[in-house]
This record gives sequence, structure tokens and C-alpha cells, in this order.
Amino acid sequence: MLGAHLNADFDMSAGFGIEEHRDRIARAQTAMRAAGIDVLWLTTEPEFFWFTGFLTAFWQSPTRAWHLLIPGSGDPVAVIPHIGAACYSRTGFTELRCFDSPHPDALGVELLVDTLRDVAGASPVVGRLEGAGTTARLPLADIARLEARLSFAQWRDATGLVHALRHIKSAGEIRRLEGVCTLASDLFDHVPDVVGTSHDERQLFRAVRHKAHELGIDEVPFLVGGTGAGGIKDIIAPPTSRVMEAGDILLLDTGCRMQGYFCDFDRNWAIGHAPDPAASAYAIAWEATEAGLAAVQPGRTCADIYHAMHRVLALYDKDTSGNVGRLGHGLGVELTETPSLTPFDQTVLQAGMVLALEPALIYGDGFVMVHEENIVVTDEGYALLSRRAPAQLPVI
Amino acid sequence: MLGAHLNADFDMSAGFGIEEHRDRIARAQTAMRAAGIDVLWLTTEPEFFWFTGFLTAFWQSPTRAWHLLIPGSGDPVAVIPHIGAACYSRTGFTELRCFDSPHPDALGVELLVDTLRDVAGASPVVGRLEGAGTTARLPLADIARLEARLSFAQWRDATGLVHALRHIKSAGEIRRLEGVCTLASDLFDHVPDVVGTSHDERQLFRAVRHKAHELGIDEVPFLVGGTGAGGIKDIIAPPTSRVMEAGDILLLDTGCRMQGYFCDFDRNWAIGHAPDPAASAYAIAWEATEAGLAAVQPGRTCADIYHAMHRVLALYDKDTSGNVGRLGHGLGVELTETPSLTPFDQTVLQAGMVLALEPALIYGDGFVMVHEENIVVTDEGYALLSRRAPAQLPVI
Repeated sequence: MLGAHLNADFDMSAGFGIEEHRDRIARAQTAMRAAGIDVLWLTTEPEFFWFTGFLTAFWQSPTRAWHLLIPGSGDPVAVIPHIGAACYSRTGFTELRCFDSPHPDALGVELLVDTLRDVAGASPVVGRLEGAGTTARLPLADIARLEARLSFAQWRDATGLVHALRHIKSAGEIRRLEGVCTLASDLFDHVPDVVGTSHDERQLFRAVRHKAHELGIDEVPFLVGGTGAGGIKDIIAPPTSRVMEAGDILLLDTGCRMQGYFCDFDRNWAIGHAPDPAASAYAIAWEATEAGLAAVQPGRTCADIYHAMHRVLALYDKDTSGNVGRLGHGLGVELTETPSLTPFDQTVLQAGMVLALEPALIYGDGFVMVHEENIVVTDEGYALLSRRAPAQLPVI
Repeated sequence: MLGAHLNADFDMSAGFGIEEHRDRIARAQTAMRAAGIDVLWLTTEPEFFWFTGFLTAFWQSPTRAWHLLIPGSGDPVAVIPHIGAACYSRTGFTELRCFDSPHPDALGVELLVDTLRDVAGASPVVGRLEGAGTTARLPLADIARLEARLSFAQWRDATGLVHALRHIKSAGEIRRLEGVCTLASDLFDHVPDVVGTSHDERQLFRAVRHKAHELGIDEVPFLVGGTGAGGIKDIIAPPTSRVMEAGDILLLDTGCRMQGYFCDFDRNWAIGHAPDPAASAYAIAWEATEAGLAAVQPGRTCADIYHAMHRVLALYDKDTSGNVGRLGHGLGVELTETPSLTPFDQTVLQAGMVLALEPALIYGDGFVMVHEENIVVTDEGYALLSRRAPAQLPVI
């Protein structure tokens, strides 16, 4: 029995219970009142899951649109295809209207318009996600149709409102994130054994996933990285048939997922021996993480953490952040969430935020060194969720 | 070494070679000329991969927008974040413009506007995906900004154009789809052993994924289903802590993925003994599939195949298609693609189309029985890609 030692808290479907979701919704409703928003219209997987607990892999089918309305008070109203009704019912929320899909007419749009009127009246202010890192998960033609049919409504960008709520993780969320990070740390500890039995990158990736499930990890939606003589240039690559050799650097970056919650951190190794300048680049990225960690305090900003890390990186590489564009980000129900650790993100750190610190630098012949840890901001500073990587580039 | 027996054609990164992609692009350009479209603007993973071979798991991070332009002639032009440059270069295409992301200004939109002008002139007709099953993968605010900045352009819906191209799979695509379907058939053959070592649904799902990687399957992005006494009501569920018992029906539906190509088919089993009416429902779904298969011929329509299956299902259950809304669909670089097997989809079958036939019916106390096979349409009729399920509900 794989991972039979895991506790029942890791039941994929168990969820937090409806009360936690009602609490999140109540906090959203308070923020909506302050912002003059009558109803939130949401269409995307993370929002469905965060607000209601609705969890399914079926989002991978692009065929059907899904709509969630958060009214000014009371329970959410889901406007979804019939195929999702049974799964949505698992959330405990009962306000549910279903449409046939696929269908030659955009039935979902019509039902959504009717439901919006019922929920929010004749001239509602409708909050929706319009900002960076969001999309509306329905066809452009249906968005145009919806806007035409909702000429009585005013649209308001609710990206900041929704993201601010999601930034602060509950005790239950932190427990889950700690759980998945611990398992991913265990997984990375097994990589040296797994490398020994793998011929090329593709077999290695498969073996890492195989080991993940042996350790009790439910899903490995994200696994990127690879190997290269002296370093890696492509940090988002799928595995290739490249055969590992002494002097290689191996990067593995994973988003494992349990009960809908992601970890996101990486590890680097040297094969056979630790070549320079990779070993130096690793040490600098590790020191930059130390500086970032030391700067984490409620009240500081994301930009503060960025600068703390960048000061260390700039000793080595003045111009770049390794082409990544930021030195870290939020995570939780998505692999990467807002905020971003950039010079321009003034989001103030608060206890309960979960972040990936991810300093990166360019070295040698255009190689990228990325180092990553996951933390939760606490009243005192921070707690590591990932097990801290060694200060020196480990050799396999 | 896991799956070391697999041949080199399954190199995740090897791709088809740039010539196959240039051929696809040339076919698109012919269709664009016929439709009066000067340039295609694409933002989504399947289109990037299908047109250029660009393959990465990094799409799971929602932070950054990606743009691909297919001009009226010549190679595509990618307008993407710096972090993607090295990975995009693996495609062999060299027309690449990069922007900093994340960034407080929508740099990608500005660079896209400039590039569109360079590629398609002062007043281009821009084709984009607006139709059913598509989304634009960038924030609504950026879409509005883009439309305002492109007041000199005309927008045209290119959904039909792009989907018609993607419908017809090349020999290389069919070989890959056959490969992943064969491996998934092998995986389903192992389910009876795996059930014996699993205590609950969650362990079973983990054990199925574990076995998949042992068999050489690279990724299992999609795995849904579950168990229930006498049947299943929720066919898109994640696994739960439910313990399997004699008299249960077990459904597993998977999208395994190799080199960017998905299978999508399911299997049903009875635990201990095959209870009625589940066994009858299974036999009817299997017979409906037979009827669907017999109807597959180039020149017939998707609606024809729907009706062939529905005639069998209607003997048992007049009103529904099991709440699924269709009796099958295309697949390939997405888990589900157009066309849909519905009464209203008049898409004409052509050799090279790959389809999931997926008859479903409601039985007993609101249970859903779904049966699914993957096929390729041939000049003579069809060839199975999945190994045909047994005619009677198998018992574990």
C-alpha cells in the first residue's frame, strides 16, 4: 500500500468543510461591500476551489465554461454544466443551476445573465478578474455576448480584492502546504538513488514521479528541469533523451499537489563532481535565499525581500534576475500566485502568506542557477515549509 | 530503469522536426488567404505546441502571457517572456521577441502591437480564437488594452480555421496517439492487481499512477473516477478515502500524456461480483460503442455517429446522454478537442481524425455508466487506438 502511513487529513476529497469556505466567502463579502461590488463573477479553477472546495481534474477539458457567483450575502451560486453537478454537490453548497453543454447556443451565458439578475438585481456592480495573472475562462465570443446582454451592469476589476483574500492562508491551508512541502523534500532526498537507476532525463523524470507516488504524493502536475554540462540554460524544459554525465548540473523543479495544494521548489545537484562556476553560482543563490529569509517580517514589502536577495545576487551578476523576471512569488491553490517578489510589488507581508523565495542568476556560458524554498510568514518572521537545501552544491 | 524498452520516438523533447511544423503553418496560411486573414494571433498552450512544437509544463504558472503570430507567409513570430526564450529555441524557429514579465506595465501587449504592425502592416485582419472551447490566455484588462491599441486592425474569428487544421492528424501524430493509447491499455490491464494492494480510492489512484510510470508512461495529467456501491454518480471526481467493497463499480478515466499527446478513455470494473443493473448498463454502453464504430466512415458526420450510438442507448434511457452532453469528442494535443459527437455537430469525418467514442447512460439510482474508446478515422472506416474493452463488465 503506497503511502499508507499518511494521515486522513490528506483525503483528496475531504476538503476543509463548508464552514471554512463560508468564512472565506464572508470575508469576500465584507471586502465587496467596502468596494461597492454587488456580486463577484468567477470562471476559473483556483477561484472555484478556494471559495467552494470544488475539486476536479476536469478543468483540463476546455469544452465547457463554468461560472461562480458570490452574492453580497449568503451562499455562492454555481452556474455550471450538468456534468459537474454531482461533483459540485460534494462541496455542501446547494445553490446550483445547470445548463446543457456542449450546445449550439451559449446556454451558459443566458443562464448566467438570468442568475445574475436574480442574485444582484437590475443594475448590479459586477466584480470580475481583469488584472495580471488572471484570465476569463470562456470564449471571447461569449464574453462579448455576456457584456452585450449585461448592458444593465457595471464591471469592476476585483483582482486585488480576490488576491488579497487568497494571500492569507488559513491554518488548514498552511497545514496542507506544509504536508506537501515535506513530502516533496522527502522526494528530493531520494533523487541521488533515482539518478543511479536512470539512463537519460526522460527515465529520470519518470523515476522521480514513480518515487513520488511511492512516498504517498498524490499528483506531480509540474516537473521541469534537466541536465547540462556545467549548467542549465532552459529551466522550464521537458525531459529529453540526454544521457547524464560527470560534470553535469541537474535541476529538478516540482509542483507536487495534495488535496488541491501545490508546493513549488527546486533542487540542484552536480553529477560526479561539482564544477565551477556552477558551484559558486549555487553558493550565491543559497546566500541570496538566506538574505531573503532574514528580511521576511510582517510589515515589510515584497520589494524589500526582492532587494535583500538582489543585493547578494548583484555581487555576482548585476543585470539580471536570471531571466525569470522575479525572485519569488506566492503559491497555494496555484503553482504560482500573487504577490511577486519584484522591485515594484509593494504588497505588505502578513502572517499567513506562503511564498516561494526563488533567487536566480546567470553565470558562465549563459547558464541559469535557480534556487527555491517555500516559507510561511509568521508573526515572528517566517517558518520554512521546504527542508532547507544544503549550503554547497550537493554531488551525486 | 523504468520503461527502458520504449523506443526513442518517445523522446519528450524530440518533437516532429521543424519541417512538420512548417507544413502545418503552410496549410494554415493557405486557409488564412482563403478567409482573408493577414495574421493569426494565438495565446494558448495547444496552439503554441501544435504550430511550433513548443512544449513545457510552465503553462501551469498563470503569471505571464504568451503570444504567437502566424503571418501570411514565412515562419511564426513568438512574442514571449524572457523565461521562455531558451525553451522556445528548441523548436528551431528563430523569430522571437521577448519582454520582461512580470512587469508593472503590460510590456507584452506593447511589444505585440509593434510586432503585429511589423508582421501584417498598418491595417491587418487579425484572426483569433473566439469560439466554443477556446479562451484568450491573457487578462481581460490586457485584451481591452490590446483592442484599443489595435484600433487599426479588424478582428476575425479563426476558431473554425484552426480547429479544422488540428482535426486531421499527421502520420506522426497518429503514431504518438497510438503509442500512448497502447500504454494506457496496458495500464488498465494492470488495474486488477493494483486494486488488490490498495485500501481506498486515494491509494488506488496513487498506485495506478505508480504503475503508469513503471510501464513507461511519462505523465498522467488526468485521472478521475471512483467507486460506489452498484454504480458511480460523479464521473469527474477526485479520489476519496472510500474503501472499496464487494458489489462496487470502479470507474477509471485517464488522460495519459506522452510527448504532448493525450489518450482519453476509461474502463469499468465490478468488485467481487457484477451487480445488476450495472452489468446491463455496461453491456448497453458497450453495444452503443459497437454501433458508433460501425457507423464511422469518411463522409459521415459527427451527428451520424452520435445518432448511431444514441439509438442503442435510447432503448434503455430515452432522455439523457448521461449528463455528459455529448457522446464523444476529438483528442490529441488536448485531452478533449473539437469536434463533438452531438446531434448538432455536422463536422464531416475525414481520414486522420482521432476521436473518443464515449456513450453514457443513466441507470438505477441516478448512476452514470460511461464507456470510452479512442479511434482514428481511416480511408476504410476506423482503427482502434485503445484496446477494445470486454463486452461484459469485468469482475475483479
